[in-house]
Amino acid sequence: MKKRILVVGGVAGGATAAARAARTDPDAEVVLFDEDEHISYAACGIPYCMAQGADCQQLVARTAEQLERGQGLKVLLRHRALSIDADRRLLRLRDLEAGREREEPYDKLVIATGASAVMPPLEGREARGVFVLRTLAHGKLMTEFIKNEAPRRAAVVGAGPIGLEMCEAFSRLGMEVTLVELAPEVLPALPPDLAAAVNEHLESHGIRVLTETRLLGILTADGAVKGLSTDKGDIRSDLVLLSVGIRPSVDLASTAGVELGAKGAIRVDRRMRTSRQDIFAAGDCCTARHLVSGEEVWIPLGSTSRKQGRVAGANAAGKEETFPGILGTFILKCFEMAAGATGLDEERARAAGFKPVTVTVEGDAVPAYYAQRGKVRIRLVADAEGGRLLGAQLTGDIDANVDKRLDVLATAVAAGMTASELEALDLAYAPPFSHAVDLPLVAGTQAVRLLAPRPSDDPGAGSASG
Amino acid sequence: MKKRILVVGGVAGGATAAARAARTDPDAEVVLFDEDEHISYAACGIPYCMAQGADCQQLVARTAEQLERGQGLKVLLRHRALSIDADRRLLRLRDLEAGREREEPYDKLVIATGASAVMPPLEGREARGVFVLRTLAHGKLMTEFIKNEAPRRAAVVGAGPIGLEMCEAFSRLGMEVTLVELAPEVLPALPPDLAAAVNEHLESHGIRVLTETRLLGILTADGAVKGLSTDKGDIRSDLVLLSVGIRPSVDLASTAGVELGAKGAIRVDRRMRTSRQDIFAAGDCCTARHLVSGEEVWIPLGSTSRKQGRVAGANAAGKEETFPGILGTFILKCFEMAAGATGLDEERARAAGFKPVTVTVEGDAVPAYYAQRGKVRIRLVADAEGGRLLGAQLTGDIDANVDKRLDVLATAVAAGMTASELEALDLAYAPPFSHAVDLPLVAGTQAVRLLAPRPSDDPGAGSASG
Repeated sequence: MKKRILVVGGVAGGATAAARAARTDPDAEVVLFDEDEHISYAACGIPYCMAQGADCQQLVARTAEQLERGQGLKVLLRHRALSIDADRRLLRLRDLEAGREREEPYDKLVIATGASAVMPPLEGREARGVFVLRTLAHGKLMTEFIKNEAPRRAAVVGAGPIGLEMCEAFSRLGMEVTLVELAPEVLPALPPDLAAAVNEHLESHGIRVLTETRLLGILTADGAVKGLSTDKGDIRSDLVLLSVGIRPSVDLASTAGVELGAKGAIRVDRRMRTSRQDIFAAGDCCTARHLVSGEEVWIPLGSTSRKQGRVAGANAAGKEETFPGILGTFILKCFEMAAGATGLDEERARAAGFKPVTVTVEGDAVPAYYAQRGKVRIRLVADAEGGRLLGAQLTGDIDANVDKRLDVLATAVAAGMTASELEALDLAYAPPFSHAVDLPLVAGTQAVRLLAPRPSDDPGAGSASG
Repeated sequence: MKKRILVVGGVAGGATAAARAARTDPDAEVVLFDEDEHISYAACGIPYCMAQGADCQQLVARTAEQLERGQGLKVLLRHRALSIDADRRLLRLRDLEAGREREEPYDKLVIATGASAVMPPLEGREARGVFVLRTLAHGKLMTEFIKNEAPRRAAVVGAGPIGLEMCEAFSRLGMEVTLVELAPEVLPALPPDLAAAVNEHLESHGIRVLTETRLLGILTADGAVKGLSTDKGDIRSDLVLLSVGIRPSVDLASTAGVELGAKGAIRVDRRMRTSRQDIFAAGDCCTARHLVSGEEVWIPLGSTSRKQGRVAGANAAGKEETFPGILGTFILKCFEMAAGATGLDEERARAAGFKPVTVTVEGDAVPAYYAQRGKVRIRLVADAEGGRLLGAQLTGDIDANVDKRLDVLATAVAAGMTASELEALDLAYAPPFSHAVDLPLVAGTQAVRLLAPRPSDDPGAGSASG
């Protein structure tokens, strides 16, 4: 009999897992279910597409038909997975179009149910003009609303990456934008001084940024949103985006009794196996191992989903691949700034039992005589005992190649390099691209000095000019 | 008595060594000698400065006065070092202005005499309009000539990085440019198929590229250059740049009897010590250890010089730092293309005793729905036994962030990562910057497949879209 591999959820982790399973074992019957009508799309691109006034449909990497034809698998959309009988290896589904339930037997099952937006339990959250943004359907709904209703004012609640990206999108679409955040700074994943620069940049682009502000209620009239009530007063608004967080979607997994881990996400091992036999998980619904702390974490990101999906799909089809773990590396563009991070910041490093030291380096993107492309700021975190790199947080101008410096540091952290090894890296130098001793190396030098202080050492070492 | 540290040569390695020595041991007397009148400048910037029609003077990072005041050292320009008496620890010098010779005692000496351009032994090489390009003085002479003589045609001999950069510079300055190269392709450091793309790009910008062409002579009239004679015919030209190679400047070192190594450069250990007691070397005049092959190599680059200078300077002042070695990472811009490499190419990997496998990945710089920024092409070289990354060669469009992908790979190669570890890297993803699974990771995936071939494996794995 043919081996049956079922995959539930088809966005990033699921679509990748299903395609990989089908290609790993061409004799297997691989079926991908999703309750939505859109699968295999780049959800992270939605804010950027909207900012350009473009159709989010182009974010679809492969349609169901393309997946079926090109990858040799079966795709069933508008099918909601209801429960798993792990002992009998049965997946119970509802065909949402036909309104019928049925059971599908499996040999291996991959759960890729993703995460869902947290909806604050406030009255008015169902009002017209109140949105969350997780799926392509959300993006399309919001685009449609903007087109039809031409809202003049938007309020964004939550200053994480998506909140910030959407501030830019709404602003580019001509709206007056207010950003509401409970924390003292935007981008709580960044150290406060770096986040403060992003805050200022938002304000310089006309975004009204209200930090340390608590959302109290949603104001409505005739079923349409009219604004927000906060502890700093009311905010008039024709559109409200709630981006206060997401949580792993584990209802299906719970029916199978799989163990949950960090933040209530599905616990997986390095082979992407759950605690129940023959059930794998991948993507935003499951945990990962943090490569620096070694701890189980839940840091859902599209880049991670795809890598986990590849491994889950291969292993469901009989391979024995491993997914080593993550650094939680992220980046975002917000107007003319870039901000991102990899690994642990000082606070998380301390919480994980390290003795972090930090250095901050700021420099021009390229030599000033060549061009003015703005500046990059790097906060490097290293362990006082041994000098191992623990993480880095960066901000900078959009043309300053912040992403390059971040990726170099993410690679160095993943490799377990020390500050001294970072300092000696042989990176590519020519004036259009970098400095003879580029900024990550300067940060390495400064960390080395801090780690082994000698009174007579070199305070101005490692100039980035060259 | 004060410790005396003398440094000969003040461009990149020497200026860095002197400054570091003075800061490491503020009680030492540090004296920097150079026969030129320019020191501490970014030689690699000359072609780029000239292309912009800018004054090369801005490439000077620190003048002699700034070095003396800011770094607490003494700088003596227009002083030529003639010989070293290593037994008596004496450096013999000629003051070129005063025309006098003298001896200077030292406790530690750093040789940073750099490299000089190879001048083919052809008649006419002294003619007006014939240039080499190594020093700021060369750049200024050539700039002056172009300003005064307004040459209409330029010929460049040698299609290495500087030759290519100068093709762009001459072209931007309004000249018709012919490039002459003995090898079958430009950029002999790149694999032929990648180099062919650069060749085409040069031609698309109106550069006449003559490969497999041998320079036979320099044509002159009345002491001025008129063109070149080659085995493919004569080339009319009002300006000739000879960039056929450089050689380490070791005349001074030889007087001290220091051992020479690869390509006749000064042999140094990881502490930048030569074979003679109390004599260090740094920069283009000395060797380095290749981090992949482990071999002693001579790959002179400004980025290496500075790192070696830091270590030589610190150690001359009493520290015990080490310079681990190099990958020979380089990059260049040529019109709207970038090209570079790190580590070993397939041929050099084989010569070093590895069993290289290579994969080639080409992809968009960023997702097509976000922007059109051109393409990146990566040739990844890995060892068939164990999968260790050995090197990478890249080309691509100038806005395609070739440098980012190159630096990630340089970091991964330096860390001794395998293709499988590359594939799992957690790099920063957002549509303005990269793909959910970025191009180096796709290359890693393809190498993994090649290293452990299984018939049923995933041929289209690791799509860069996302």
